[in-house]
Amino acid sequence: MAAAMTAIRLYDLQVRDDRRPSPFCWRIKYALAHKGLPFDTVPIGLTDIPAIEGGAHKTVPIIDDGGKTVSDSWAIADHLDKAYPDRPPLFASPAERELCRFVEASLFVSAGRSLLMGYVKDIHDHAHERDRAYFRQTREKLLGSTLEELASGRAERLDAARAGFDSVRLTLKGGAPFLAGANPGYADYIVAGLLLWVGSIATAPFLKADDPLLVWLGRVQDLYGGLGRTSPLNAIAA
Amino acid sequence: MAAAMTAIRLYDLQVRDDRRPSPFCWRIKYALAHKGLPFDTVPIGLTDIPAIEGGAHKTVPIIDDGGKTVSDSWAIADHLDKAYPDRPPLFASPAERELCRFVEASLFVSAGRSLLMGYVKDIHDHAHERDRAYFRQTREKLLGSTLEELASGRAERLDAARAGFDSVRLTLKGGAPFLAGANPGYADYIVAGLLLWVGSIATAPFLKADDPLLVWLGRVQDLYGGLGRTSPLNAIAA
Repeated sequence: MAAAMTAIRLYDLQVRDDRRPSPFCWRIKYALAHKGLPFDTVPIGLTDIPAIEGGAHKTVPIIDDGGKTVSDSWAIADHLDKAYPDRPPLFASPAERELCRFVEASLFVSAGRSLLMGYVKDIHDHAHERDRAYFRQTREKLLGSTLEELASGRAERLDAARAGFDSVRLTLKGGAPFLAGANPGYADYIVAGLLLWVGSIATAPFLKADDPLLVWLGRVQDLYGGLGRTSPLNAIAA
Repeated sequence: MAAAMTAIRLYDLQVRDDRRPSPFCWRIKYALAHKGLPFDTVPIGLTDIPAIEGGAHKTVPIIDDGGKTVSDSWAIADHLDKAYPDRPPLFASPAERELCRFVEASLFVSAGRSLLMGYVKDIHDHAHERDRAYFRQTREKLLGSTLEELASGRAERLDAARAGFDSVRLTLKGGAPFLAGANPGYADYIVAGLLLWVGSIATAPFLKADDPLLVWLGRVQDLYGGLGRTSPLNAIAA
């Protein structure tokens, strides 16, 4: 970059103990690090979102890049590739971007709902006190059940969610260190973000100790000076 | 290309009525067309494979490219990108290749086994007479059940397999015409190959008539002069 760079500001969901659970914020933290762009995170609670940057955004991540505000993880990723073309691309080709959308869609379908239902009570319990009523109300409506009812059937839900990552396990069996191949890419950040979300709040470990996903996840956590270890995590594996 | 081109020879699995079911051969037919490489298909039955090109290959596709023989669809795709670098690439970046492997793995996990179990009796019944005993023996061993037992429970299997394509439906909901984005790519050929396989032999249609997959599939079938309509198909949707 020709000009001296101002750090990009990332509004990052925060829960108790300064944990940062949002899988969508995780992928943007990795995206910023991938491009070598300096950034500061601004921790916010769920109910703080309407007060940020004029209240135009309903979800995190939100970034402020030198006065320009962008929300939605895909819009942010596109903004970063467009605004910083001399930095390593997140998407080396349009097809890579679309296939990363397939990765997101695929895990959403195979694991998303069972993962959310299995851990929604833990997410609630880790939220800031001021966010809990809002969280309970919106999530119980979304899932059609009380958080306590959902928690009672969680063993089967977590079995289903664990199997929902078989596509990732089978891909990694090919021997490449990352889902994007020899080097890490946005697909890795999408999937790692899901597991860091779970690790941030899970009171029951998600993966088995011999799960091959753990080797890959450790590799992603080590990237960029250990970015994936900068927020308190519970045990991801038992 | 500087030199006059000799058509590449593709050994293509053939069943009754000159149907060409192999999903792995389909992706290579599309790969060759994508790169604008002329090719001739040589129809072969399952039990002919050991007699081809010295018997070094156990599965189709097998190509003979000016005397060089390559088998395995991934090895063939890599060969084509390497041997014809001035033609449109199958994989514009290493990450695109790896993510196509994720697409394959993901559908294998979500739909592969239920699709095979649901249609294995139909595959048998469409095979050439001389291939049937071999097919029955190997598939019954693989699936741990007789073809007739598998056929009896197929409604539930096909429901599961149909749901196994939800990742594709959700991705296409984003509005791009192809899984690879604005232009078709290898991920499209992988998924279309699975559906053309089913369409080649299914005596019970796989998709519902209002399935959004059909619009996309029709688009892929139309590519390259209607390549996806060059083999007899049964109804894909009811």
